[in-house]
Amino acid sequence: MESWRNRKTLILSRTDMMGLLEPGEYNDRVEHAYRMHGEGRYYMEPKGHIVLDKYPGEWEVMPSYIEEPEAAACKWVSIREENRAKFDLPTVFSILIYTHPETGFPLAICDGSYHTVMRTGSAAAVSAKHLARPDSKTLAIVGAGNMAEGVLATCDEVFAWEDVRVWSRSQDTLNEFVATQQPKYQRFEIRASTNLEEVVRGADVVVTVTPARGPIVESAWISEGTHIAAVGADKEGDQELDPRILTRARIFVDDIRQCRTDGEINVPLSEGIISEEDVAGEIGQVVAGKLRGRTSEGEITVFDSTGFALQDSATVPLEYERALAAGVGIEKKMISN
Amino acid sequence: MESWRNRKTLILSRTDMMGLLEPGEYNDRVEHAYRMHGEGRYYMEPKGHIVLDKYPGEWEVMPSYIEEPEAAACKWVSIREENRAKFDLPTVFSILIYTHPETGFPLAICDGSYHTVMRTGSAAAVSAKHLARPDSKTLAIVGAGNMAEGVLATCDEVFAWEDVRVWSRSQDTLNEFVATQQPKYQRFEIRASTNLEEVVRGADVVVTVTPARGPIVESAWISEGTHIAAVGADKEGDQELDPRILTRARIFVDDIRQCRTDGEINVPLSEGIISEEDVAGEIGQVVAGKLRGRTSEGEITVFDSTGFALQDSATVPLEYERALAAGVGIEKKMISN
Repeated sequence: MESWRNRKTLILSRTDMMGLLEPGEYNDRVEHAYRMHGEGRYYMEPKGHIVLDKYPGEWEVMPSYIEEPEAAACKWVSIREENRAKFDLPTVFSILIYTHPETGFPLAICDGSYHTVMRTGSAAAVSAKHLARPDSKTLAIVGAGNMAEGVLATCDEVFAWEDVRVWSRSQDTLNEFVATQQPKYQRFEIRASTNLEEVVRGADVVVTVTPARGPIVESAWISEGTHIAAVGADKEGDQELDPRILTRARIFVDDIRQCRTDGEINVPLSEGIISEEDVAGEIGQVVAGKLRGRTSEGEITVFDSTGFALQDSATVPLEYERALAAGVGIEKKMISN
Repeated sequence: MESWRNRKTLILSRTDMMGLLEPGEYNDRVEHAYRMHGEGRYYMEPKGHIVLDKYPGEWEVMPSYIEEPEAAACKWVSIREENRAKFDLPTVFSILIYTHPETGFPLAICDGSYHTVMRTGSAAAVSAKHLARPDSKTLAIVGAGNMAEGVLATCDEVFAWEDVRVWSRSQDTLNEFVATQQPKYQRFEIRASTNLEEVVRGADVVVTVTPARGPIVESAWISEGTHIAAVGADKEGDQELDPRILTRARIFVDDIRQCRTDGEINVPLSEGIISEEDVAGEIGQVVAGKLRGRTSEGEITVFDSTGFALQDSATVPLEYERALAAGVGIEKKMISN
């Protein structure tokens, strides 16, 4: 018998998790998660939510099992919108438990915050790879908060951008984004602006990553052939796009069970502006070759990403392997018996 | 502003968690969890399950928020029935994340295995306190696995037992139980037997903690006035009691949403032997004084406990406080920013 009695669990902080994978590797893992989703080779219930009136934000619980490479994980996410102002803490953070499938042993307990920034960016990047026009050259990132870093890093892997624009309401946020991110990129200059129309108009790919609770991107700004990755909306009432964009677009979602209640489509669905029949399907079906993505040059495509737990269980095994190889983190015997 | 930027998370192993609370304190916290449940001062969805055909067992995900003392926690439980034989690992273990409610900060990440043994024992003990006859003297524990230790320790706090019996199919398991547990108790001698009828007949309180998938406790063995805490059944198809016992009894559950699908009542309900109208109510209503418990000396009472997440979020704050005071565990800055 192979005894696991004295095995230790690897504990990885945010710093330990950073740099274990390259942006392209996050894309690869997320694309794989979508493929497994499209092939039905997983077990995942929709995210659970705990929302308290007293604290703006929510908790999310995200357990999943993926068949190949076989892994299970559970992420417990805290979102607290007042954290930065009140506690000098990030708005979003999480703890991710990576579990060996056969024994249930906790191989690793990780801070999930950097991981989530990257795998969320990859949602946009992988959707652009499969749905945007192959000649896409202009990227607009709507929102310059935590997630924007991941969007830029991962999208940089899928197209040779010639024009990269980023929008925030706040000039300070934009300045910080450019100061921290521009040094990583030689091929383009990040054009930052507080004028949303200017940022969005003429972009081939638009990625929205804001906490908006109502439309901010207008339909008139979106030209034919644009791909939009709507990543920000992930709870009831969230919305970033003028719903008229959806009526003009071929719509894809990550998981219809989550998107119908939490995604970009939730408000337009509940208002009857679109119906579920207007949704072409799930991106996993496109990645798995079961569903056609873009059908013409001029088509507008929208990908509604709520973020799902398979993105975590598909990615954490490789992060774990790299962390072991690098010797980062601390090991603790959690389960003595 | 109070900066949380450099706060660390306390990591507690099974060994670190042991002995932080006394058995009576576990009872107190679990009784409090039931009270808050009865008063509706919580947020908790029913447990989520991931069951794979290939590995006997399951995962459970148990997030919750409790209003007072305000806390949130998420437990990720692994149950793998072949662990002991194949990997020299426990059948059940778990990781419990204790979260500060206002910030969402992970105050502690704990092994949940010892904690779960004790708070599960407390479910039986608190039910006996509220539902058993006040003159109860004989305790029968059906099952001598991991959970039995917690049952005995916590039940010892609520009655002055004169006769304590324990059953297992396996004489080895019984021998081990007596060898490890008897030294903790002076007042009674643990009578261990592989004869289930002998153990159950004449007991005032019967606690069942087995993984049985069909009735093992017969109705004929249960005399009037007995209290039964049915703790073992916690997933669809589980069952420990002859359903005729339920038709004779006043039935209480911990959370009807969990019990109807996973608890002792799930099979009898699905077979139409009882209906939900035969359930008197939830134990939290009894603890909160909203529902009468036992109504006569001769009544048989059954408490169907599936175990719920509030038992964790009600208990872990005190464990955390004690761990800090004792200086056990290791601290790691998980979230740098």
